Amino acid sequence: MLTQITIPFESKENIRYSCNTASLFHGLLMEQLSADYAEKLHENALRPFSQNILPQDAGGIWTVSILTAEDAEKLVPAVTNLKTAEMLQKNDVLTFGAPEQQSVSYSDLFRRHYIMSDAPRLIRLHFETPTAFKSGGQYANMPSAKLILSGLAKRYDHTCGIHDTIYETLFDEMEQRVTISGFRIRSASFSLEGVRIPAFLGEITLRVSGNPTFRSYINMICDYAQYSGVGIKTALGMGRVKYEPIKP
Amino acid sequence: MLTQITIPFESKENIRYSCNTASLFHGLLMEQLSADYAEKLHENALRPFSQNILPQDAGGIWTVSILTAEDAEKLVPAVTNLKTAEMLQKNDVLTFGAPEQQSVSYSDLFRRHYIMSDAPRLIRLHFETPTAFKSGGQYANMPSAKLILSGLAKRYDHTCGIHDTIYETLFDEMEQRVTISGFRIRSASFSLEGVRIPAFLGEITLRVSGNPTFRSYINMICDYAQYSGVGIKTALGMGRVKYEPIKP
Repeated sequence: MLTQITIPFESKENIRYSCNTASLFHGLLMEQLSADYAEKLHENALRPFSQNILPQDAGGIWTVSILTAEDAEKLVPAVTNLKTAEMLQKNDVLTFGAPEQQSVSYSDLFRRHYIMSDAPRLIRLHFETPTAFKSGGQYANMPSAKLILSGLAKRYDHTCGIHDTIYETLFDEMEQRVTISGFRIRSASFSLEGVRIPAFLGEITLRVSGNPTFRSYINMICDYAQYSGVGIKTALGMGRVKYEPIKP
Repeated sequence: MLTQITIPFESKENIRYSCNTASLFHGLLMEQLSADYAEKLHENALRPFSQNILPQDAGGIWTVSILTAEDAEKLVPAVTNLKTAEMLQKNDVLTFGAPEQQSVSYSDLFRRHYIMSDAPRLIRLHFETPTAFKSGGQYANMPSAKLILSGLAKRYDHTCGIHDTIYETLFDEMEQRVTISGFRIRSASFSLEGVRIPAFLGEITLRVSGNPTFRSYINMICDYAQYSGVGIKTALGMGRVKYEPIKP
């Protein structure tokens, strides 16, 4: 089960919360959880949630996406029960509005792309908070189809318990059959505890060739990306993405 | 000797000449040359000139850059003697304005970067007409530091008669010591005889580490790029670039 909660908040001090402040909200979220469960989340490299902030005048919009039903049981109440919060780092107090919640099961996601639709060949991804990758141990701030999709494939498998994917074959296919046909991107950095992570923002259009099953798969994991995020540090506010299938 | 001629032109039919029309100006230029010399240019894969069009209302600006003194003898008069030209493909007649010409010798270029200046670590390149590369036999429309610089190094050597560069070492150094630290780019296509070549436009900031000699070299070839262009089909209007050293 994939669950997404969107919750607006107002700042007492009229502060506009930038996407970089998501790490503060990560801290806030951890404070609402049992120490055991927070510790377990911390140990899990592929975290079962992503969260991010979109700025608004005098506040922002907080989005938390949870990738498994088990984690949703713990994380959903932690978010939706919040009414106010002190933000000590900003000398501010936040008031949370009404949360909106939507869910989709993995089987619905599968059906939506494999059965219900004629999978489009063009997919536009809108990167709404700074997005970056690690490649060969280094930060990579310029996207490629393979960097975007290979991480999504692994995270998708991890969260829905698939263990038999032959990644070498899959990643080769991604490299051969998916190209970036259009883009409008710019460099952007994400500040995290005083460190500036080189990243990018903007839009990318993927062109997917190959058979309908492969096209369905790529569409499905790009739809999934709206919950998981793309690239590194998606639990700390990076890699928020919107999926837009482009119908011919 | 590097020579650049800039010549404005007016269109009788008030047509705005896009950067894609540079191939027509390539044809016009070839018509002004002896058949033997035009043939010789055609056979030379690394052409000793680049040319491109920047659009203006009711016309445009034609820039022709020539990379050797020998070729300048033939190409400069072919450009500067033009007063009018029929553009049959557009049912148009062009009137050329006064050409501006500037030159720099390779030794001056060398001195400017190696001796006169403390080579900056940041270089901004402004890609003003669609720019693309070939990599592994395929068009590449997204830039990398290596794609930009490796082609420049080879063209620089070719036009000033250097034969002893060990490219493997140089390209490794480029990959390790030059990163794209900032960018604002978008996809763009260049139309050439009915074919759309995927390309990009925009700005890229290179960060050069390493010793001063290497930094001077990278600055020098990026300055040279203003004459040679970057990437493929620079004789047909692609890959026009402006070099901007960023002083600390």
